[in-house]
Amino acid sequence: MVRAALAALGIDALLVTDLINVRYLTGFTGSNAAVLLIATDDEEPERAHGHSEKPTDDPDPRTRFCTDGRYTLQSQEQVPDLPRLIARPCDVALLRGAPAGSVGFEARSLPVAAYDVLQAVARERIRPVSLRTTLDVVENARAVKDRTEIEALERACAVADQALADLIGTGGFRPGRTERAVGLELDQRMRELGAEDPSFETIVAAGSNSAIPHHRPTAAVLAAGDFVKLDFGATVDGYHSDMTRTFVLGEPAGWQQEIYDLVHAAQAAGRHACVGGATGDAIDAASRDLIAAAGYGPQFAHGLGHGVGLQIHEAPSLARGSASIMAPDMCVTVEPGVYLPGRGGVRIEDSGVIRPDGYHVLTQTSKDLGVL
Amino acid sequence: MVRAALAALGIDALLVTDLINVRYLTGFTGSNAAVLLIATDDEEPERAHGHSEKPTDDPDPRTRFCTDGRYTLQSQEQVPDLPRLIARPCDVALLRGAPAGSVGFEARSLPVAAYDVLQAVARERIRPVSLRTTLDVVENARAVKDRTEIEALERACAVADQALADLIGTGGFRPGRTERAVGLELDQRMRELGAEDPSFETIVAAGSNSAIPHHRPTAAVLAAGDFVKLDFGATVDGYHSDMTRTFVLGEPAGWQQEIYDLVHAAQAAGRHACVGGATGDAIDAASRDLIAAAGYGPQFAHGLGHGVGLQIHEAPSLARGSASIMAPDMCVTVEPGVYLPGRGGVRIEDSGVIRPDGYHVLTQTSKDLGVL
Repeated sequence: MVRAALAALGIDALLVTDLINVRYLTGFTGSNAAVLLIATDDEEPERAHGHSEKPTDDPDPRTRFCTDGRYTLQSQEQVPDLPRLIARPCDVALLRGAPAGSVGFEARSLPVAAYDVLQAVARERIRPVSLRTTLDVVENARAVKDRTEIEALERACAVADQALADLIGTGGFRPGRTERAVGLELDQRMRELGAEDPSFETIVAAGSNSAIPHHRPTAAVLAAGDFVKLDFGATVDGYHSDMTRTFVLGEPAGWQQEIYDLVHAAQAAGRHACVGGATGDAIDAASRDLIAAAGYGPQFAHGLGHGVGLQIHEAPSLARGSASIMAPDMCVTVEPGVYLPGRGGVRIEDSGVIRPDGYHVLTQTSKDLGVL
Repeated sequence: MVRAALAALGIDALLVTDLINVRYLTGFTGSNAAVLLIATDDEEPERAHGHSEKPTDDPDPRTRFCTDGRYTLQSQEQVPDLPRLIARPCDVALLRGAPAGSVGFEARSLPVAAYDVLQAVARERIRPVSLRTTLDVVENARAVKDRTEIEALERACAVADQALADLIGTGGFRPGRTERAVGLELDQRMRELGAEDPSFETIVAAGSNSAIPHHRPTAAVLAAGDFVKLDFGATVDGYHSDMTRTFVLGEPAGWQQEIYDLVHAAQAAGRHACVGGATGDAIDAASRDLIAAAGYGPQFAHGLGHGVGLQIHEAPSLARGSASIMAPDMCVTVEPGVYLPGRGGVRIEDSGVIRPDGYHVLTQTSKDLGVL
């Protein structure tokens, strides 16, 4: 899919320097590497430009990988099937050996200083290379997941579900504990269940703090009658789960039940709108319109959702104005919220996968108002 | 110190987009922000260019901060004393309002795509602005720490020392446990002692794995008679400690004692050479020469050390060819190692601060060969 994009862009090769994209293409997880993807076919790699090149025995000479000496062993294990260069800087080494023609670079992440070095290298070459700006080529390919990726996301979601169930089941989620203590326990449980790390800094937001969309856990104490919002996830094999649940510690008051039911309905509407062919804007609207109709439009100030995968936020975008078009096997969150400053807020979020028959939830924890 | 550098570079302002540098300059810890540092003085901000500008009541109008609406509250708390813009993208908003003249940007981190947008903004302005490449302006200032920063590093080192002492004291570091279990316990203990996070992925390397400089913990089991290398640190208030200790589980064999004593002596030599005015190259050589003289030169394949602070690796560099010049209040690691593939390896590392009378160790754990 990435190589097809190269042809569509009319470039002869793509120099991939973003480490998440390198991992996606090769499986390599180290801290320094780059990949050169060559668009032309194996037999006559530079026919379009009239150059000849020796045939090669490389397994796939159209994909070249480079890392530095610290990662010789690791790259042999993780990237056994690609020709490997060991050199620094990796981008320079790959550009020196690139076939003549136009070479795209990843303008969204390549720093200007690195670009300046690449330009100098391009000018030194005898067989000419011209650098070409590209945006989101690999990122857009990453939006659609394959089976292995979806299975990793399923495991990541299952770890988060189980960690929360265990936290609640052992009485760790109760009035009197601090946000920070609850967050640390949730993180620790995810690690013990096999997560490499939490997907991001776990949000535990009690009482009026639940009205802050991205609250960092503090010494604030969970109190009876309060909303408590948990937004967290697990990273498994590099893939990130993302789930938000909101609870009431005790019986909910009328206003709590009201906004909970509203967000719950809006989240369902968002999930049902999340089908192949829909735009991110349309899905956002399907959920947001319910909240706006109830008079809480201004209290839902963020987008509805985002892609999840090797990054916690990635393509596609589910938000006002988003032209992203949904396709089967995209994995996205659906997470409306209503926040009443000084009182409390509710957000309900699933991670899920878009199938031909609709949105399948991967985060299995109940969305009934959890009264604890 | 940063503003003096602007004058030396002949630029009128510096647009700081690297988030670590933003944190250093303002204390802001969110995920989106930028700062504009203006070189001219308060009363006549643009005299050099003949422009006039309204006087302002801003507390320090020469330092302007921008973040987005998610961080309004957080920035009020963390950055109370600077004029604040709430806008997206932050770099664009600050450049639009910059005084006329030359504006440096951080070429080491600014992506090409963001630079292209800034260039378009510069061209749209009526009062001309020219963008100028800069490298490491704030990074070089960060190399010399103030008292508050050194105190944060002291706390970070103390957390790591205490976590290791507790791990050992409670019997958690013993034959039969896996590398991964030991690493998870060390991380958890650091968090319970107040660390925001480990400084990096904790290294626990048992037996022949200790010969891999940057080994990731596995299910390998700690065994009697083996070297076990621990390389870890704590992040406290954003500052990173970094310490390596190597132990033998049981009585050391002759070869183990030999390379341990060698690395121990080389680490002391490195510390003693670490004085104001010395180059990174000279300090590296003081330690490396001992190891080379003993015939293990090729088995010490990495640099001697690096600065520590808001990043785990920052300026200055202590390595072959490094022209970095040491100065009082720089904080650096000293970490020689000898690695014998298939058998085992030793690294001993302190974090410390350079004082007028020499290198003061901040990581207090004993460096005697720990026989457990």
